Amino acid sequence: MRYIDLNADLGEGFGDYRIADDASLMSIISSANIACGFHAGDASIMAASVARAKQHGIDLGAHVGFPDLLGFGRRRMQIDTATLAQYVIYQLGALAGFARVADYPLTHMSFHGALGNMAAEDEGLAMPLLRAVQSFDPNLIISTTAGNAVEHCARELKMKVACTLLADRAYHANGMLVNRALPGAVIHGAEQISARIRQWLTEGTLTSIEGEKIPLNVSSILLHGDTEGAVALAKRIRAEIEQTPGCEIRAMSRQLLRDE
Amino acid sequence: MRYIDLNADLGEGFGDYRIADDASLMSIISSANIACGFHAGDASIMAASVARAKQHGIDLGAHVGFPDLLGFGRRRMQIDTATLAQYVIYQLGALAGFARVADYPLTHMSFHGALGNMAAEDEGLAMPLLRAVQSFDPNLIISTTAGNAVEHCARELKMKVACTLLADRAYHANGMLVNRALPGAVIHGAEQISARIRQWLTEGTLTSIEGEKIPLNVSSILLHGDTEGAVALAKRIRAEIEQTPGCEIRAMSRQLLRDE
Amino acid sequence: MRYIDLNADLGEGFGDYRIADDASLMSIISSANIACGFHAGDASIMAASVARAKQHGIDLGAHVGFPDLLGFGRRRMQIDTATLAQYVIYQLGALAGFARVADYPLTHMSFHGALGNMAAEDEGLAMPLLRAVQSFDPNLIISTTAGNAVEHCARELKMKVACTLLADRAYHANGMLVNRALPGAVIHGAEQISARIRQWLTEGTLTSIEGEKIPLNVSSILLHGDTEGAVALAKRIRAEIEQTPGCEIRAMSRQLLRDE
Amino acid sequence: MRYIDLNADLGEGFGDYRIADDASLMSIISSANIACGFHAGDASIMAASVARAKQHGIDLGAHVGFPDLLGFGRRRMQIDTATLAQYVIYQLGALAGFARVADYPLTHMSFHGALGNMAAEDEGLAMPLLRAVQSFDPNLIISTTAGNAVEHCARELKMKVACTLLADRAYHANGMLVNRALPGAVIHGAEQISARIRQWLTEGTLTSIEGEKIPLNVSSILLHGDTEGAVALAKRIRAEIEQTPGCEIRAMSRQLLRDE
Repeated sequence: MRYIDLNADLGEGFGDYRIADDASLMSIISSANIACGFHAGDASIMAASVARAKQHGIDLGAHVGFPDLLGFGRRRMQIDTATLAQYVIYQLGALAGFARVADYPLTHMSFHGALGNMAAEDEGLAMPLLRAVQSFDPNLIISTTAGNAVEHCARELKMKVACTLLADRAYHANGMLVNRALPGAVIHGAEQISARIRQWLTEGTLTSIEGEKIPLNVSSILLHGDTEGAVALAKRIRAEIEQTPGCEIRAMSRQLLRDE
Repeated sequence: MRYIDLNADLGEGFGDYRIADDASLMSIISSANIACGFHAGDASIMAASVARAKQHGIDLGAHVGFPDLLGFGRRRMQIDTATLAQYVIYQLGALAGFARVADYPLTHMSFHGALGNMAAEDEGLAMPLLRAVQSFDPNLIISTTAGNAVEHCARELKMKVACTLLADRAYHANGMLVNRALPGAVIHGAEQISARIRQWLTEGTLTSIEGEKIPLNVSSILLHGDTEGAVALAKRIRAEIEQTPGCEIRAMSRQLLRDE
Repeated sequence: MRYIDLNADLGEGFGDYRIADDASLMSIISSANIACGFHAGDASIMAASVARAKQHGIDLGAHVGFPDLLGFGRRRMQIDTATLAQYVIYQLGALAGFARVADYPLTHMSFHGALGNMAAEDEGLAMPLLRAVQSFDPNLIISTTAGNAVEHCARELKMKVACTLLADRAYHANGMLVNRALPGAVIHGAEQISARIRQWLTEGTLTSIEGEKIPLNVSSILLHGDTEGAVALAKRIRAEIEQTPGCEIRAMSRQLLRDE
Repeated sequence: MRYIDLNADLGEGFGDYRIADDASLMSIISSANIACGFHAGDASIMAASVARAKQHGIDLGAHVGFPDLLGFGRRRMQIDTATLAQYVIYQLGALAGFARVADYPLTHMSFHGALGNMAAEDEGLAMPLLRAVQSFDPNLIISTTAGNAVEHCARELKMKVACTLLADRAYHANGMLVNRALPGAVIHGAEQISARIRQWLTEGTLTSIEGEKIPLNVSSILLHGDTEGAVALAKRIRAEIEQTPGCEIRAMSRQLLRDE
């Protein structure tokens, strides 16, 4: 039996603002990555997100970003690493507070936006940030795209890692994501995205932008919540998995992640 | 033997801003109440404050306030109670994150500024906020001035309570604080403040603004960190306690607080 | 000929967040009230809003609120009046900066949310805030619901006033708004709202919640941008005006407002 | 007669926080650069700063930075240039609002911290930001260290430029500042700083870190307000100028800046 997690970045509103249809998505996915008040999210949204995750019995993770609500955490900031590590702990702690009150476990974390991109490129940044995560909770699963500095450092630290497939993004033959700025980097169309997922589910491969079939060893598929038709696409991908013999949706915390 | 805690509100800077001489005060007091990033404080300051509290072996508490950095949490805000309860959890969680990383316990909490005043006046507000605290950690000590709604509700919830004497504030004969706006409400002069502390240490009484001696049953003395001469006054009050036979400084968590 | 302005509160997003369909509404209304970065709005949105107002040739106003993005300026804050007056100037200045760069005039202002409600109830607050507005620009039109402290003070200060009809809100026989918390305070249904507008356009009256027809002397109708079906309703109300003989949509700055 | 302006970055507090002794410095300098609420400063502080500048009859300028109060505007942020240009206009507008209310002119502007460093290095950034300033007010003087991209672009745009000498910083023989991270970059000691100023006042030269005397054509000296002994040093530098025959302190707006 092949297990696959479906995760999405949720709780990305602030105050009266909302971005995605969290309620619908929470009923489709198996893991939620919740914004913690720095790039998005606030206490009320976090409390509601934890309650929903618990209600659906799905994995609850922290989505940690830069302190830049105005830029939604998508703008690079040159912050010294020790300070950034403290920002990470602050965000983990805040979400863990709601998890504790709800008596529901925090299972994983991932880096958001520009912070995620910078950590993915630089082990000198990824390592101390992951050490901070580990000092907070050594059992938290690190959710990341495969093959980058975050994965490498997390494995070096013997942390649990769940690699994630970005359903709507093209990959190079070496397994790396195609830069978003390049043509063809983003896959459009539910049919095309579904076909890619289907191939991956049945063959374990993805066709790279160069045209080769490459194997891709991931535990999870990341769904976008904030795009047009996000809920319909999420349902379709869920159905693809459910209809594939030998495949089953399972939250990352319930898969065997270490010693892969 | 009579035990008394010395506590102060610290970690009240933000970014490059600082208000008090935290390093000096931390070496004098036995309990620190740390701002959690809403009315003051940030991740770096919180991390440094937790490290200092651990270094001195003093109690570590959360000082929880309104989300109003611009007003330092001193301006009343009409926020619905359920939302406020979530703000409380967020702040407790964030500080608890640093405590967890430092492997040092969070022992107590108190309400700051306008939030503290509003909760002190209104059981309808104090009760749900304290329930939120209790749902986060039922062992946290509630630090508060005596006789107000916070104390009443905390006792009703069977929480641990540490009542605090404000060394530089006048009291009414009924044990309530004199409103800050009234003449004589704030006691000035280190000598006069010391004399009041001395009387309280030796007799267990305070002379009210009306002139009567009143008994005051408190476990702690609150020192202000942000006033002129704060460190010198803190040292003096500490010396008063150390020089009083039968009195000893002891952090609130190491006193017997329940069932008083 | 009877002139009537159509205004709406716009530019109420922040960063990546959006609330209303500003582009559509800007093509329907004759006056836009733009958030200035305190309760909502940011520099990019303000610049875009000013550009759109200029493109459509409509009135450009400042919508001034509390510094509470988290609460969308809808939560009362107890801020001293002199400080509040400075917040008003800051916001007016910021928007006026974009107006200046666009070489397009700032014509009016109104108070948003909780600040608007507090000023409407209290001349002791409305007067100094309006004096601040007047010291910034004595020609700015004050847009407000009729009969409240803001109108009274603005008239006393000999400022230009544009009273506004809230199309979807019930009124008392004395011309005051029915409190939002009371049943019947908000009128639902495009048909019912249109009928009220039609009556007011043809007779100059509104039927109060008590059942009496009352005269209502206003220069403008406020449309909500953030409700379900807002654009369709705005179009319908615009059509009502255009189809009423003797009525014409005209921005408040082009109506004769003083000496009414 | 040789004229020299003395300027300082002031109004850098926020809420209850203060950094420099603004009141004392305002009585010593001839130009104040006021923070506008992004990296520091708030409406109350800006209003007070404008009032003080007017009281002393000194030049009033905008000190414009990144939206990063937590980092005091000292951390680089990758923000797209068009958005940054709008942040510049927002800040200029806000301060201009207070200037307008005080009926006192805004005379100049400079870039703060990381934004200043990035603009100094990159004409692709400096040019659009300066165009934004010019579109806001073509008469604003650009205050900058000499020889960098900001100066070049401002001159290309035919804007008024006031080059500033950093009294406590070492220069290379080519007239550029020594990077702060290098040894010897910051000059310590009031006596040494005074001696440099004296040499510059009498000879028009500075001794570079390489040991050569270089000519330095500047209109102003920048004093730091936030360092230990800042007021005493400011007084001393003021006295140096006043005691040098043929030298006179004069605000940048009263010097002839164009066509140098």
